[in-house]
Amino acid sequence: MRMRVLLVALLVPAMSMAAEGMWTLDNLPKAKMQAEYGFTPSEAWIKRAMLGSVRIAGGCSASFVSKDGLVMTNHHCASECLEQLSTAKKNLIKDGFLAKRREEELSCPEIELNRLEQITDVTAQVKSATTGLDGEAFKKAQNAIKAKLSSACVGNDKETVRCDVVDLYHGGQYEVYKYHRFQDTRLVWAPEKAAAFFGGDPDNFNFPRYDLDIAVLRAYEGGKPAKIESYFPFSKNGAAAGEMVFVTGQPGSTQRQLTVAQLTTLRDVTLVNSVISLSELRGVLEQYSKTSPEAARTAEHMLFGVENGFKVRRGQLTALLDPALMKQKQDDETALRHYVAQNPALQAKVGGAWDAIAAAQQTYRQIEAPFGMIEWGRGFNSKYASYARTLVRGAEERAKPNGERLPEYADAKLPEVEQDLFSTAPVYPEFEKVTLGLSLTKMREMLGTDDAFVKQVLGKQSPDQLSAALVDHTTLGDPAVRKALWQGGKEAILKSNDPFIKLELAIDPAARAIRTRYEKEVESVQQKNSELIAQARFSQQGTSAYPDATFTLRMSYGEVKGWKEGDRQIPPFTTIGGAFARDTGADPFALPASWHAARNKLNVEQHYDLVSTNDIIGGNSGSPMINRNGEIVGLIFDGNIHSLGGAFWYDPVLNRAVAVDSGAILETLDKVYGGSELKKEMLGQ
Amino acid sequence: MRMRVLLVALLVPAMSMAAEGMWTLDNLPKAKMQAEYGFTPSEAWIKRAMLGSVRIAGGCSASFVSKDGLVMTNHHCASECLEQLSTAKKNLIKDGFLAKRREEELSCPEIELNRLEQITDVTAQVKSATTGLDGEAFKKAQNAIKAKLSSACVGNDKETVRCDVVDLYHGGQYEVYKYHRFQDTRLVWAPEKAAAFFGGDPDNFNFPRYDLDIAVLRAYEGGKPAKIESYFPFSKNGAAAGEMVFVTGQPGSTQRQLTVAQLTTLRDVTLVNSVISLSELRGVLEQYSKTSPEAARTAEHMLFGVENGFKVRRGQLTALLDPALMKQKQDDETALRHYVAQNPALQAKVGGAWDAIAAAQQTYRQIEAPFGMIEWGRGFNSKYASYARTLVRGAEERAKPNGERLPEYADAKLPEVEQDLFSTAPVYPEFEKVTLGLSLTKMREMLGTDDAFVKQVLGKQSPDQLSAALVDHTTLGDPAVRKALWQGGKEAILKSNDPFIKLELAIDPAARAIRTRYEKEVESVQQKNSELIAQARFSQQGTSAYPDATFTLRMSYGEVKGWKEGDRQIPPFTTIGGAFARDTGADPFALPASWHAARNKLNVEQHYDLVSTNDIIGGNSGSPMINRNGEIVGLIFDGNIHSLGGAFWYDPVLNRAVAVDSGAILETLDKVYGGSELKKEMLGQ
Repeated sequence: MRMRVLLVALLVPAMSMAAEGMWTLDNLPKAKMQAEYGFTPSEAWIKRAMLGSVRIAGGCSASFVSKDGLVMTNHHCASECLEQLSTAKKNLIKDGFLAKRREEELSCPEIELNRLEQITDVTAQVKSATTGLDGEAFKKAQNAIKAKLSSACVGNDKETVRCDVVDLYHGGQYEVYKYHRFQDTRLVWAPEKAAAFFGGDPDNFNFPRYDLDIAVLRAYEGGKPAKIESYFPFSKNGAAAGEMVFVTGQPGSTQRQLTVAQLTTLRDVTLVNSVISLSELRGVLEQYSKTSPEAARTAEHMLFGVENGFKVRRGQLTALLDPALMKQKQDDETALRHYVAQNPALQAKVGGAWDAIAAAQQTYRQIEAPFGMIEWGRGFNSKYASYARTLVRGAEERAKPNGERLPEYADAKLPEVEQDLFSTAPVYPEFEKVTLGLSLTKMREMLGTDDAFVKQVLGKQSPDQLSAALVDHTTLGDPAVRKALWQGGKEAILKSNDPFIKLELAIDPAARAIRTRYEKEVESVQQKNSELIAQARFSQQGTSAYPDATFTLRMSYGEVKGWKEGDRQIPPFTTIGGAFARDTGADPFALPASWHAARNKLNVEQHYDLVSTNDIIGGNSGSPMINRNGEIVGLIFDGNIHSLGGAFWYDPVLNRAVAVDSGAILETLDKVYGGSELKKEMLGQ
Repeated sequence: MRMRVLLVALLVPAMSMAAEGMWTLDNLPKAKMQAEYGFTPSEAWIKRAMLGSVRIAGGCSASFVSKDGLVMTNHHCASECLEQLSTAKKNLIKDGFLAKRREEELSCPEIELNRLEQITDVTAQVKSATTGLDGEAFKKAQNAIKAKLSSACVGNDKETVRCDVVDLYHGGQYEVYKYHRFQDTRLVWAPEKAAAFFGGDPDNFNFPRYDLDIAVLRAYEGGKPAKIESYFPFSKNGAAAGEMVFVTGQPGSTQRQLTVAQLTTLRDVTLVNSVISLSELRGVLEQYSKTSPEAARTAEHMLFGVENGFKVRRGQLTALLDPALMKQKQDDETALRHYVAQNPALQAKVGGAWDAIAAAQQTYRQIEAPFGMIEWGRGFNSKYASYARTLVRGAEERAKPNGERLPEYADAKLPEVEQDLFSTAPVYPEFEKVTLGLSLTKMREMLGTDDAFVKQVLGKQSPDQLSAALVDHTTLGDPAVRKALWQGGKEAILKSNDPFIKLELAIDPAARAIRTRYEKEVESVQQKNSELIAQARFSQQGTSAYPDATFTLRMSYGEVKGWKEGDRQIPPFTTIGGAFARDTGADPFALPASWHAARNKLNVEQHYDLVSTNDIIGGNSGSPMINRNGEIVGLIFDGNIHSLGGAFWYDPVLNRAVAVDSGAILETLDKVYGGSELKKEMLGQ
């Protein structure tokens, strides 16, 4: 805290502190690492770290851990697949899963893995395409150049190559990230949820912790295990207290470089609305889960996401309600504006950017509710509705040239879209009614009973009546139906009698209209002016700063270290014995039977979970924690409660990453789960 | 809005605007009324208004409307009684109720009515009792003098006399309010909820509106209808647009005179936590209600309260997130502090008050969660738990001298406590499990799994396990059991095997400890320093200002008037025909069968609901709206959405009170409900 106060007092911009930073792999702070830890990564070391790291396209991180394509991630990153492979009689989330032989490995219908292979700077191309443009024209030109650059990068290898144009420093840099794409991913091992998520929601984002939050998948290519040259070997010993450790992964999103006006909107509008709506949905899902075991099973994945998302946003709200944080943000902004004002050329170009963004916030506050409900789909919380949106829009957009489409339907995005759309995962009609009914009710509440769009959707029906009528008569739960509609294009869509397709066709014009307004009056204003602010920041700081997180590959470094919580010193490790001590027998504090059966075999002194100073955020779930030798010493699965403010600033005193110790993974895989073959593969034996 | 900006610009304290103010009846702004509307109420007029007004002790307003004790209030003020008198087979909320003869009138088990009869200033006594005291000593001395003054006022007439010491202007004035108490209250008429609360939660706090939100009760004394000399006669014609109207009633609580530090705590801590927890409870209750009609019936009253409470707090949060509001509050405070600073004697006495209150906020922020969960009972949302608290504390406290008790167990409070405790209202065990289980879960979440109190309560059980175990084995649902425990005193309590009693005995020391800390470090600091600020305000403004609402009798004046919502002019009246036009047939927009049956008889042009500029707030529900002749022209039941900011300031441009037109009550009572006898009584015929 002392450092932070000092910075404020000097009115200089926030420089990165020890261990702070989610660094792109082509711009690691080598000098800083050397100064703080006496270690400079070599180019080869960095390359290995890049190729061993894996992105799960749906929103997690992972790593290759064997030459035959084993992929390590978190249980909670694979839990949607576990749910999709479960039935009323076979519950993989509750019971866990281990493939004793490769033929037993189960296909995950919606998991796409990406391995970053190349980074190309395209800043000049992107910026020149939008020069002199504003509003809708700016947005369209940017979409077009991005689609063109991605397609050019992919070439003809759509199946195995994926290219994304990545926006770093809020428009300061644009880069093409070229990935190897794996869409055939299979489940190898997952422990029971009672072990993976021991402590449940109460312990989530807390520490001490006793979770085996792991799932092991395998990437396949051509129907066979993928051959992986660069992967991370496992360390049996894990890391010691004070040891330097690295985390690679895909932090999803941080807001450290937003303007004060943007942060204020985020706090007062977005986050407040979000914690309210998540709380209500949470209550609905909790109570629905109590009606039957099958209800609980089908709601489990969403409930986890809602509880996790609630805690994240509640933590962010708390951080933004802290006057000290807002004061530092204001001071940083004042300092940067002061720097700009002293340079007349810069001032002429950039000086108006903050006010322009602030004005766009006023528009955003007005349209946040309709935009969120109608275009983002908050009013239609249903898989069927989401499929219908993809089918209706996809038919419309694919008929256009690549560069003129909505960016989510650009050629480079279609393989992921199709994987989701053709998924064999079951849809549960009763559960759909619950979530859709609630979201329609909330749409009526937020937009008003007399709103024209609400009247168009509901007519004389209540939200629950409409929800039931739609769900009872749709056939979109059948992937073959969806595939036929997708392949049939616009003609098939217009002929369809499916009630969700008809609803989506009816509301699409209104949804597109509010999106256009958002893009024109809010998003493009923010993008254009954020680019200007980024230029000012580069002019002041160069690239000694790191960009806000964008769900692209980053590395953080730090050390294994506890923290002081008030008067209490929190040690950096827990042990397997501690898990037994915390076991009450009542969910979520009940260890599974497998653990009790193995109790006498287990080394109770084995480190179980640990904390480190690595700067991570949501999206880093499943990240490997590696040592200087590039060996896996841990598996990131959480942050402590103080890490939630990490969206806005990094606090080296309190912010901690939480990981499973590599030794605990090996110890339990063998002794609790009987996975000796898998263990051998992970140890390269 | 122009007026508000002007005030800020001049940096003078906020003076009351046209129609602003919840005035005590002994300090009406007669000159202002005369200047604005050319009307000065006579003493006799004021006395009649006072004696015709009724307080429902549980939290509503009402009025006498016949010489035989008829009492008019809102449906939603009587809905708890309706629920308590209902069974799985007879649903008074859904079906409504009309007693055709007096013998058919049904006893409401928990409604106490109060009629204010005398106001006595006791400021000097209260202040001299606490002179020179701080912290716990201050609080104890204040409790003692209040208990003494109330008891002296009641004398030997406990059954029919109730006296409360009322704190006005946050310690600026203390007064004894002497009431006539009626505990035998019976239900005469209530329409179906579908008519009373047409539009349901979506339309709540909105206008145009089409609600018949009325219930008619009758006060009894000695087993016979009470003889009432002063009551309000009914106007058939209602009020015209622009007509001056008055509202008497008990506004519950406003925060217009809080310091900026208090408002900030209210916003960032209390309201944020409140909207979150109400949202989750709302979700749980909604989903529980869908499991069966009986579940819906038993949850209905709480669900209404939760949805209503959520909307109120969401509106308050929105108001406090408005920078314009906080700026005015800051400017007002700066101006008052500036005024104080210019007077050395005042500065010496009062100057430190704001900082002392701000420091107390820091303590409050730390203890808000345990205080709320443990002492206020947010962790134990259960009627059984509440009965157990009353029984355990009541036994302990009644053994002490009156002046040394916790104030809620002072002699003057016991009749209301006993009415609640001995109520014959049913308790629903399955529903208790739901609310108790959730609140225990939230307690664990807020205080932490490893909190000593949480561990004491839960042991190795999950919240739902504990909740089920307690509910399954308690006998506190039986009023005879409660009565025996109450009368048996401490000995009976200590011998009881009831699990709720044993739990309450176990946790009472911790609950008292956190309460003592709150009273010592927060409440008494706020009270003492608020008294000082009140003195400064009196010195500056005299009693030309009105005190914050305190659930005591107030009068507001204003006029029937619509408002402009953006570009739309909202007219002040709706009509009965409009209700039919809005009917969709789907709940909550489905008029009941009785209305459809009577459709051809009804005058569709009859004014139905209306809005006025009267300054009201929650607690005013059920208030009579009267004209210059003291006749009922309406029945207050809501405010518009802009009225929610009324907790903090009055906005004459947008803030509107919402009422049922007296003509609509008479029209429907007769033609829809067949209540011709009741109508005659209300018309004095």
